[in-house]
Amino acid sequence: MLTDDLRRELPGDRLVVDPDIAASYTHDEAEWAQYGTPRLVVRPHTAEEVRTVVRACLRHGVPLVTRGAGTGLSGGANSVDDGVVLSTELMTAIHEIDALEGLAVVEPGVVNDDLRAACAEHGLWYPPDPASAAWSTIGGNVATNAGGLCCVKYGVTRDYVLGMQIVTGTGELVRLGRRTAKGVAGYDLAGLMVGSEGTLGVITEVTVRLRPKREPEHTIVGSFASVVDAGHAVAAVAAAGLTPSALELVDRHCLAAVDEWKNMGLSVDGDVVLLGRTDLPGQAGEHEADAMLACFEKSGATWVARSTDQEEADALFLARRLAYPALERLGPLLTEDVCVPKAAVPDMLARIEAAAVRHDITIANIAHAGDGNLHPLLITPPGDDEARRRAQAAFHDIIADAIGLGGTVTGEHGVGLLKRDGLRQEQSEPVLDLQRAVKTALDPHDILNPGKVLPAA
Amino acid sequence: MLTDDLRRELPGDRLVVDPDIAASYTHDEAEWAQYGTPRLVVRPHTAEEVRTVVRACLRHGVPLVTRGAGTGLSGGANSVDDGVVLSTELMTAIHEIDALEGLAVVEPGVVNDDLRAACAEHGLWYPPDPASAAWSTIGGNVATNAGGLCCVKYGVTRDYVLGMQIVTGTGELVRLGRRTAKGVAGYDLAGLMVGSEGTLGVITEVTVRLRPKREPEHTIVGSFASVVDAGHAVAAVAAAGLTPSALELVDRHCLAAVDEWKNMGLSVDGDVVLLGRTDLPGQAGEHEADAMLACFEKSGATWVARSTDQEEADALFLARRLAYPALERLGPLLTEDVCVPKAAVPDMLARIEAAAVRHDITIANIAHAGDGNLHPLLITPPGDDEARRRAQAAFHDIIADAIGLGGTVTGEHGVGLLKRDGLRQEQSEPVLDLQRAVKTALDPHDILNPGKVLPAA
Repeated sequence: MLTDDLRRELPGDRLVVDPDIAASYTHDEAEWAQYGTPRLVVRPHTAEEVRTVVRACLRHGVPLVTRGAGTGLSGGANSVDDGVVLSTELMTAIHEIDALEGLAVVEPGVVNDDLRAACAEHGLWYPPDPASAAWSTIGGNVATNAGGLCCVKYGVTRDYVLGMQIVTGTGELVRLGRRTAKGVAGYDLAGLMVGSEGTLGVITEVTVRLRPKREPEHTIVGSFASVVDAGHAVAAVAAAGLTPSALELVDRHCLAAVDEWKNMGLSVDGDVVLLGRTDLPGQAGEHEADAMLACFEKSGATWVARSTDQEEADALFLARRLAYPALERLGPLLTEDVCVPKAAVPDMLARIEAAAVRHDITIANIAHAGDGNLHPLLITPPGDDEARRRAQAAFHDIIADAIGLGGTVTGEHGVGLLKRDGLRQEQSEPVLDLQRAVKTALDPHDILNPGKVLPAA
Repeated sequence: MLTDDLRRELPGDRLVVDPDIAASYTHDEAEWAQYGTPRLVVRPHTAEEVRTVVRACLRHGVPLVTRGAGTGLSGGANSVDDGVVLSTELMTAIHEIDALEGLAVVEPGVVNDDLRAACAEHGLWYPPDPASAAWSTIGGNVATNAGGLCCVKYGVTRDYVLGMQIVTGTGELVRLGRRTAKGVAGYDLAGLMVGSEGTLGVITEVTVRLRPKREPEHTIVGSFASVVDAGHAVAAVAAAGLTPSALELVDRHCLAAVDEWKNMGLSVDGDVVLLGRTDLPGQAGEHEADAMLACFEKSGATWVARSTDQEEADALFLARRLAYPALERLGPLLTEDVCVPKAAVPDMLARIEAAAVRHDITIANIAHAGDGNLHPLLITPPGDDEARRRAQAAFHDIIADAIGLGGTVTGEHGVGLLKRDGLRQEQSEPVLDLQRAVKTALDPHDILNPGKVLPAA
């Protein structure tokens, strides 16, 4: 028995066999995705212990699902019946922060915000900032290639991963990638692991690239009467050659939900709020902030404000931060994650609106507008199964619309379970075959998070 | 016969059968690497024609070597006996430059400088700038994940590839990656292709990300009495949190060779020249230039200068640009490409010096010092076979030293043929097995550039 083996091979406290506790490890935050009942949850402390778990799974032909904090939104970390769940939450060491080389070496369970705080003490900055940064782990961020607000200027997790240590699908503990600034020695296997959602290897250590701490940001806010106007403002910012350090959109459903909760009067000035930031140093930052504000105004903003004071700026961003919890108060959320060309943002928002009308559900929108990465949030009243079915129909329409506009079904949340059908729509069968070939090559016994990412052949 | 098939299936002018002309397609610029005599050179005009060639090779079991301009330095594009060489040089269309989305869609044969010039007309910038930019093609740049001077701030080719069209190892014409700013739909196959040196697919189109045109640069030059002092200056720049847009090192052998050729008096002021640049806008650029100059001075620079005038700045960079041709006048060059942690640059330079003494050869150094990417240039008198043997021994020592210092055997030139043994030293056998598994998965019939990159099992 696998559980007996692991009881023998690992310190006893690594195994969670209590079904009630184990139940809290069975799924991520994509509550609409299916999940099974695992036979065992394991919380290893070291890479060698991870290898022990993988080897035991290989011996017994048992599937292994790796998870970090479980903040994923696509079901990628959902457990499978009778499988093993491996939680990296106790592997939280920051082994090294090297200011001169501009890198950190961390265990996968380190929480994103903890790494950022540790880097700040060295005058350094780890940019990737998913909204889950206070809870989500670097291992999970790497496995999903997490994005965030900073991406419009600073890119995604992939852009900060230099190397890693993994346990392979055949139970080997290996190092991929590098510690140097550049390197092209063989295929980019470390890059291949990023975004592979635990299906190609189990990450036991990550080496990330850091940037010098940046200048304080300028914040610019604009209200717009319509998503079309806001879309024009986003396009104007791009056309002016500006590179904001954030460019977020919050729609009227979010504003209304925040108002209903916090009574902030946000929905008075317009239908949509755009939140821009620039972190260029000195006068260049002033100029970029001025230029962004001018883009907002000439696109028809009904109200604008700017600030360099961090507290005031944070207040201006409050609508963005409160939108998700404010909407969660209204019922279960089905979170979308399409990404379209920037020019298609107004059109995509209009199509989302049409889907909401067609299927008679509420869809709110938070968007990393500067990236064209939209998060339509499909809201259904608790317990209303018919509304859930309508929401799922709208979900599929939104996916089809995004593909139709030259976009992708997932900008930063990953495929997991929820987007497998979408992946099949987005990519041709020969491309899916390439992906399946890679999966088979690196996980020949199909024990690493089977059933995730790839639609069945 | 494969040639008969292709004569039937392609317009006649696509085939180069004249042995004298075909001979010019048999190798890249790594003249010390072996190469064979191909049966045929093909110059397709379209992706469909590329697919026709790949399918013919599959049918007849004939190896296919793809090449761009042939400016590679590792033998990656060297032909194999009786194989087919596919040159992308006639696929030079720039299909699209989209300023709003910040991307370009180009055929693989577009020359790097041509793309840069076309982008500049739209106020855009394609950063990757290998020294071969005037001749090398985007397809070749992608296949080798080419670097250049800008990498220290702006990254390598990989950081600018959004998507591509390829012909797979099974003869399918497919699209990988995306056109959107973000995307995590399935494994990062487009990323996997970057740097795979034609062994996993034949690139027929590339979609690259662009940046807005940047501010004029400030240039700072410093002379140093020793590589150790120059190394300290590089470390000081990093420690000060500065991000130069270039930071290049040119050693005394290069300076002497340029002086001998152009009589510029470069080698009078010191043993080593460091060339720094910053492109921060406005006053921030002034400050960064001042700060970099201060780093040079406090590290013992014997002479410093700075300029914002482009012509004057170019004159200061002249030693860097003339170094390679000046050294080529002295004899065949064996070009190294190790990359080490920044802090190890002085130590690595000292080891290179020791290898030169030990093996009684001349080794000059150009280095992307800010990246720790060194290009020792091993010089041997024309026709001196004994010197070539000694140079090869030094080459192997340098590889071992780089690995010993935590570095990689190739920073930006690729593995090709020259670094296969080095790859075996750098990576563990289980990692090489992962790479072989990927190769077999994507090129199951082993027709795409066989024998390159991966050392034999």
